[in-house]
Amino acid sequence: MLSFSSKLVEKAVEQFATLPGIGRKTALRFVLQLLRRDKAEVDAFLDAIRQLKEETHECKHCHNISDQECCDICLDPRRDTTTICVVENIQDVISIESTGQFHGVYHVLGGIISPMDGIGPGDLHIDTLLQRAELQPAREVIFALGATIEGDTTAYYIFKKLPRRDELVVTTLAKGIAVGNDLEYIDELTLGRSITNRIRFSL
Amino acid sequence: MLSFSSKLVEKAVEQFATLPGIGRKTALRFVLQLLRRDKAEVDAFLDAIRQLKEETHECKHCHNISDQECCDICLDPRRDTTTICVVENIQDVISIESTGQFHGVYHVLGGIISPMDGIGPGDLHIDTLLQRAELQPAREVIFALGATIEGDTTAYYIFKKLPRRDELVVTTLAKGIAVGNDLEYIDELTLGRSITNRIRFSL
Repeated sequence: MLSFSSKLVEKAVEQFATLPGIGRKTALRFVLQLLRRDKAEVDAFLDAIRQLKEETHECKHCHNISDQECCDICLDPRRDTTTICVVENIQDVISIESTGQFHGVYHVLGGIISPMDGIGPGDLHIDTLLQRAELQPAREVIFALGATIEGDTTAYYIFKKLPRRDELVVTTLAKGIAVGNDLEYIDELTLGRSITNRIRFSL
Repeated sequence: MLSFSSKLVEKAVEQFATLPGIGRKTALRFVLQLLRRDKAEVDAFLDAIRQLKEETHECKHCHNISDQECCDICLDPRRDTTTICVVENIQDVISIESTGQFHGVYHVLGGIISPMDGIGPGDLHIDTLLQRAELQPAREVIFALGATIEGDTTAYYIFKKLPRRDELVVTTLAKGIAVGNDLEYIDELTLGRSITNRIRFSL
């Protein structure tokens, strides 16, 4: 149990300890490092967090986080607006963007259907997705959701609601062995999927 | 390499990534969690850091961090002001206070003598320590510095400057095996010290 002689230090430590994965010892290291910084540096730190909270918007098209009304991805004329990648949250957008392999647009659901957590279809941005699929109109909808029961349920629910058009292809992420992994460490379900869905070998 | 569609998110991630031991992926987790919080919660977070920087003082006696001009430890009438524990920084005060084993007062040097880092005796709060040792007057000065060359040098330098009085005892932290450690994992120097400075067995 850490003992502080300053209430203000204790308060700051407790605030940092609310961040995910941060205990009081690590929080104290953050606090002591901030104390050593110039006022201008601490102000820059505070401003960045304040702006993050007060000046970001939810993109009116895809519900991604954005600095304007509409996010950079939706505004980018080089992106293919007929390919919509459905993701759970903005972290997934960042992950997929970081691969550099996707050139369509996103739709952030804001969660997945999870009766255990009391999250139903009505809590998610599904209506706007169906509108976009109809209006843009979409040629492909990709379900980039987690390989979990909740992810599968959500994909199935949306799939049933999507317009039935011959030109609309619905896809999902490939399941298989992770790049760099040895076979012996892979669970049987994943390995089974990777054999069933094997792809043509190429160099 | 993470790719952000929002400059404000990127700015906040970069600020969190300046904290010790925090990379951009962890910083992003912090940012996404802050985004999910109420404005009031984020304001409390920001206020705690702002107050930490703007409203804390250095205690005029011991240079510990404090909410007032003088820290809670120096103000506490139950503390023995004739026993001064000399430490490198405020983190050490917190560590020793957390043991609950020390009831004297502290003196925070603000660093240790380290020619490699360009830190000389003039950069540390040594003058005020010598004044306190003279005026309070001290009956014991404890060097609670790291078991390093720099720690030993600093202790030696201060020791030579301390007033020569029969009533003044100068001590240092015991070196020995850590509680809970097996002998086989202890380095020879430490084990040697723990034999040389062995203490009477008691239950």
